[in-house]
Amino acid sequence: MKTVNAYAAQSATEPLIPTTIERRDVGAKDVLIKIAYAGICHSDIHTVRGEWGPQQYPLTVGHEIVGVVEEVGAEVSRHKVGDRVGVGCMVNSCGECANCRQGEEQYCLEGNIGTYGAKDVDGTITQGGYSTHVVVVENFVLSVPESIPYEAAAPLLCAGITTYSPLSHWNAGPGKKVAVVGLGGLGHMAVKIAHAMGAEVTVLSQSLSKEEDGKRFGATDYYATSDPGTFTKLSMTFDLIINTVSAKIDLDAYLSLLRLNGTMVNVGAPADALPLHVFTLFNQRRSFAGSGIGGIRETQEMLDFCAEHGIAPEIEVISADAVNEAYERVLSSDVRYRFVIDAATLA
Amino acid sequence: MKTVNAYAAQSATEPLIPTTIERRDVGAKDVLIKIAYAGICHSDIHTVRGEWGPQQYPLTVGHEIVGVVEEVGAEVSRHKVGDRVGVGCMVNSCGECANCRQGEEQYCLEGNIGTYGAKDVDGTITQGGYSTHVVVVENFVLSVPESIPYEAAAPLLCAGITTYSPLSHWNAGPGKKVAVVGLGGLGHMAVKIAHAMGAEVTVLSQSLSKEEDGKRFGATDYYATSDPGTFTKLSMTFDLIINTVSAKIDLDAYLSLLRLNGTMVNVGAPADALPLHVFTLFNQRRSFAGSGIGGIRETQEMLDFCAEHGIAPEIEVISADAVNEAYERVLSSDVRYRFVIDAATLA
Repeated sequence: MKTVNAYAAQSATEPLIPTTIERRDVGAKDVLIKIAYAGICHSDIHTVRGEWGPQQYPLTVGHEIVGVVEEVGAEVSRHKVGDRVGVGCMVNSCGECANCRQGEEQYCLEGNIGTYGAKDVDGTITQGGYSTHVVVVENFVLSVPESIPYEAAAPLLCAGITTYSPLSHWNAGPGKKVAVVGLGGLGHMAVKIAHAMGAEVTVLSQSLSKEEDGKRFGATDYYATSDPGTFTKLSMTFDLIINTVSAKIDLDAYLSLLRLNGTMVNVGAPADALPLHVFTLFNQRRSFAGSGIGGIRETQEMLDFCAEHGIAPEIEVISADAVNEAYERVLSSDVRYRFVIDAATLA
Repeated sequence: MKTVNAYAAQSATEPLIPTTIERRDVGAKDVLIKIAYAGICHSDIHTVRGEWGPQQYPLTVGHEIVGVVEEVGAEVSRHKVGDRVGVGCMVNSCGECANCRQGEEQYCLEGNIGTYGAKDVDGTITQGGYSTHVVVVENFVLSVPESIPYEAAAPLLCAGITTYSPLSHWNAGPGKKVAVVGLGGLGHMAVKIAHAMGAEVTVLSQSLSKEEDGKRFGATDYYATSDPGTFTKLSMTFDLIINTVSAKIDLDAYLSLLRLNGTMVNVGAPADALPLHVFTLFNQRRSFAGSGIGGIRETQEMLDFCAEHGIAPEIEVISADAVNEAYERVLSSDVRYRFVIDAATLA
């Protein structure tokens, strides 16, 4: 066991505070990572505040982790000491079910093991990346190409793969019109990735306040959803809509923007049920789908794709003691576009 | 103009009565069909009763039509006098939009022209198949293979294509597990077609009362949806669910039966909005879709497929004067599985 510095929530209602947590000894297939940067994902906030179900405290969150390999177990072959690596939303899965065998560990039929707040194979509760070190089985450790700026690589492990996976699965590419709903942490990555894939990208945002950014990231068009004219003008336009917004939206209005065989994919997760008229789907043979992160093989593919295309998230690096303030700024949408904790400030 | 016998509704609330209607003169690209049989579709009832919007009366419905070519226009090349032909839910479309050019006339961007109750190109309101004759442009007239029993061919033009199209689009076939919700006019065709395509078929019906029929049509398994244990037992089982039921169902419960990348397709159309939890779609990357009839090319493909595989609907032939009684039996689900009007009884 190794005691390491971390920031942790003590309850659902208190701010995060500096503390120490335990990391297990490095097993034969484990990699010990010295964390360099950890991104702040909206899911972290939902989780520590108990909005996605009760948690066991103290809890350290963070599932956008990059760092350097400090030690490897005897049977590790994928990574070696000194490698730049990353860890995303999962740290393990059964490895044996039909989905795991297809490399879709995120849909593991036994349930994958989340990077924080999940019951690990040894019965302990997993602790996330707001910490100086983490121990992860090698199969869930990604290689982070050197050409991606170190501090900007972290958000790719969640925001990057969560948008890359549906864009890839639903064939965003040349000749395809893709709309991205919401220009936040996920949305801005969706724009960059869809553009790099060759699709024509439109941003649908509540207002035009980030239009300049959106176009710089690769969008051809930018529309305000607060303007009802947007929905008339863009009726039956898109092949694919990636909805990154967790707020309750008028599904029928957005689905009506799809053309023949179009699909709207939610990567944002509203807690309440949304009403949907089946007639909207009849027209143009439309689909409404959901997608959650991506598999390990696909996450590596995404990292390599981003390196090849020079894509990285827009970030603001903060010290660990600014995490509570950063949470408030995420909640008020005052972030362009992702906070990343410099783990050196935890040492 | 030609005056022909027909059954028509005089208002949304009165029974259908025998009357006469006008058919246009046979134009250069038109085919005059002497109708032999016309199926009774639940849509006919919704329409004449004004449940899908106000109608212009008197109105003759019926969009499952088979008959024989009696006359062709000067420029007709696809059909000749004496051919056995069929007409389904559409009698025309713009022919020029992106969807029509792809052979997806059912999704014509200008709106296809329905077989009844729709404004035709000449400004008249189209009249359907409960009649002795109909005049239709040749491109919307299908060839009905001789090996399909004459009276059983009619329901293929709506119930057949409405289920064939999504089964084909979403790749029902060997190795795929397909569930069919509801064993009525559409459902029983979905079972026969999916089975012929090589899929393993399960029927999900309110009760087990039609289990013997379902298995005879090709289903391997048959479950009652009134038994909550069905949803536990079949969790994450199907690649494709075809929902033929128009009643309001618990979408999340049915969607949870889909396995990785599974899709549920509604061909039944509930009038009200249905609530849906996006989290249900996140799990296993599920999709919820709609599908409406099929294109003309695909309808011909379906007829040829049914001929090749010896598939025909189960029908009960009635005389035209039994149509009002038949409507009541459709509404009380007392039909196994489709009523077909013998048009000779209209002469």
